[in-house]
Amino acid sequence: MITVNSRSVAGPDESFKPMALHRRDVGPGDVLIHIAYCGICHTDVSRARGEFGTTHYPLVPGHEIAGTVSAVGSAVRKFTVGDRVGVGCIVDSCRECDYCRAGMEPYCREGHVRTYNCQDRTGEYTQGGYSEKIVVDEGYVLRIPDSIPLESAAPLLCAGITLYSPLRHWKAGPGVKVAIIGFGGLGHVGVSISAALGAHTTVFDLTMDKEADAYRRGADDYRLSTDPAVFTDFAGAFDLILSTVPADLDYDAFLGLLTMDGTFVNLGVPKSRISLDVFSLLYNRRSLAGTLVGGIQETQEMLDFCAQNGIVPEVEVVTADEIDAAYDRVAASDVRYRCVIDIATLTAG
Amino acid sequence: MITVNSRSVAGPDESFKPMALHRRDVGPGDVLIHIAYCGICHTDVSRARGEFGTTHYPLVPGHEIAGTVSAVGSAVRKFTVGDRVGVGCIVDSCRECDYCRAGMEPYCREGHVRTYNCQDRTGEYTQGGYSEKIVVDEGYVLRIPDSIPLESAAPLLCAGITLYSPLRHWKAGPGVKVAIIGFGGLGHVGVSISAALGAHTTVFDLTMDKEADAYRRGADDYRLSTDPAVFTDFAGAFDLILSTVPADLDYDAFLGLLTMDGTFVNLGVPKSRISLDVFSLLYNRRSLAGTLVGGIQETQEMLDFCAQNGIVPEVEVVTADEIDAAYDRVAASDVRYRCVIDIATLTAG
Repeated sequence: MITVNSRSVAGPDESFKPMALHRRDVGPGDVLIHIAYCGICHTDVSRARGEFGTTHYPLVPGHEIAGTVSAVGSAVRKFTVGDRVGVGCIVDSCRECDYCRAGMEPYCREGHVRTYNCQDRTGEYTQGGYSEKIVVDEGYVLRIPDSIPLESAAPLLCAGITLYSPLRHWKAGPGVKVAIIGFGGLGHVGVSISAALGAHTTVFDLTMDKEADAYRRGADDYRLSTDPAVFTDFAGAFDLILSTVPADLDYDAFLGLLTMDGTFVNLGVPKSRISLDVFSLLYNRRSLAGTLVGGIQETQEMLDFCAQNGIVPEVEVVTADEIDAAYDRVAASDVRYRCVIDIATLTAG
Repeated sequence: MITVNSRSVAGPDESFKPMALHRRDVGPGDVLIHIAYCGICHTDVSRARGEFGTTHYPLVPGHEIAGTVSAVGSAVRKFTVGDRVGVGCIVDSCRECDYCRAGMEPYCREGHVRTYNCQDRTGEYTQGGYSEKIVVDEGYVLRIPDSIPLESAAPLLCAGITLYSPLRHWKAGPGVKVAIIGFGGLGHVGVSISAALGAHTTVFDLTMDKEADAYRRGADDYRLSTDPAVFTDFAGAFDLILSTVPADLDYDAFLGLLTMDGTFVNLGVPKSRISLDVFSLLYNRRSLAGTLVGGIQETQEMLDFCAQNGIVPEVEVVTADEIDAAYDRVAASDVRYRCVIDIATLTAG
């Protein structure tokens, strides 16, 4: 057993406190990762605050993990000590079902093991990346290309793949018109990926403050989602709309922006049940879909794609003592565009 | 101007009465059709009873029209007098937009002209097939293969194409598992088409009374949709679910029956707004879609496909005086499986 420092919350209204965390010994197929940075995802905030109702406390969040390999098990073939590596939302799955074999581990028929707040195969609750070290089976570890700084790589492991996977699945590319709702942690990476894939990319956000950043990242258009004119100006305009926001939306209005055979994909989780008029789907033979993060192989492909295309998330590095303040800012959508914890500051707690 | 006998309703609570109806003169591109049979679609009932709130009275319903050509305009090239022909849900569209040019007339950017209860390009309201004759541009007239009796061809022009189009679009075929909700006017034709395409086909219905008919039409399985065991027995089982029922459904339960990348397609119009949990879409990357009827070229392809595969709807021929009684039976789902009006009985009124 390996004991490491971490930051955890003990309940929905608690602040982050230092906690000694036990990691399993490095098994034959395992990689021990010395964590350098861990991103703060909106899901971390919701989970820590108990908003989904299924949080197991004490909780160490974090599924945007970047660091270096500090030990490997005897059977590990893909990694050696010193390699720059990352871990995303998933640390295990059955590896045997058709979905796992097809590289779609998030959809594993046995259920995947999430990086934190999830019982692993031994029944233990997983704990995430707000900690010094983590032990992960090499099959769920990603290689971070040299050109991507570790602090910038961290957000790619959730935010990046969450956008890359649907953009590829629904064939974003030249001649395809994509809209991304929300220019935040997910959206700002999504715009870069969509533009790099060659798609015409429009951003809808609640504020115009980020317009210049969006254009710099390759957006072709940027509009206020609260402007009613949007829904006439862009009626039937888009092949693909990706909603990155954890908010309730007027689905009928946004579905009206889809062209023939267009798809609206939910990445964010709305607060309420989705409600819509069936005619919003009947006209233009539209689809409303959802997606989880991509699989491991696709995540590696995304990291390599970002390296090749110079796509780097914009991050604010915070210390371990600043996690609570960062959470308030994430909840208030006041981050440009991802807070990343410098794990080297964690031992100071 | 051509004056013909028809049956019409004067208001939502009125019964059908004889009415003299004016048809336009046969223009250069027009076909005059002597109607032999007209199917009674559930939409006719909803529309006649004002359930959509947009009925223009007096109303002559009917968009499952089968008959023979009795005159053609000077520029007509596809049809000659005596040809066996049909007309479905659409009698005109702009013919110039990208959707029309792609054969997707139901999705015409200018809006298609429906066969009844729709203002045509002159501003006149169209009137449907519960009438002796109709004048239609040849571009919206279908050829009925000789092997399909006219009374059986009628339901194919709405019910048939409404199922054929999504089954083809979402690639029903060998190795694909299809479920059809509702074994009625639409469903019973859909099962035959799905089976003929080679898909594994399961029926969900509110009664077991029609099980033998479904198996005879090629169904591989038939289950009560009210049986809770369905939702565990078939969890993640289907690639494609087509709902033919105009009823509210538990969307979360039915979406749970979809496998990876599966699609639930609405053909029927539920009474209430659709409500669902976003997680029903996130898991298995599912889609909820809608579709209108297919285009003209696809409708011809469907008729030819049905002829080649011996697919014939099961109809009950009723007289013009029996329309009101037939409507009550349609509303009560008490028809096996489509009432078709013998238009020769219409002049008796």
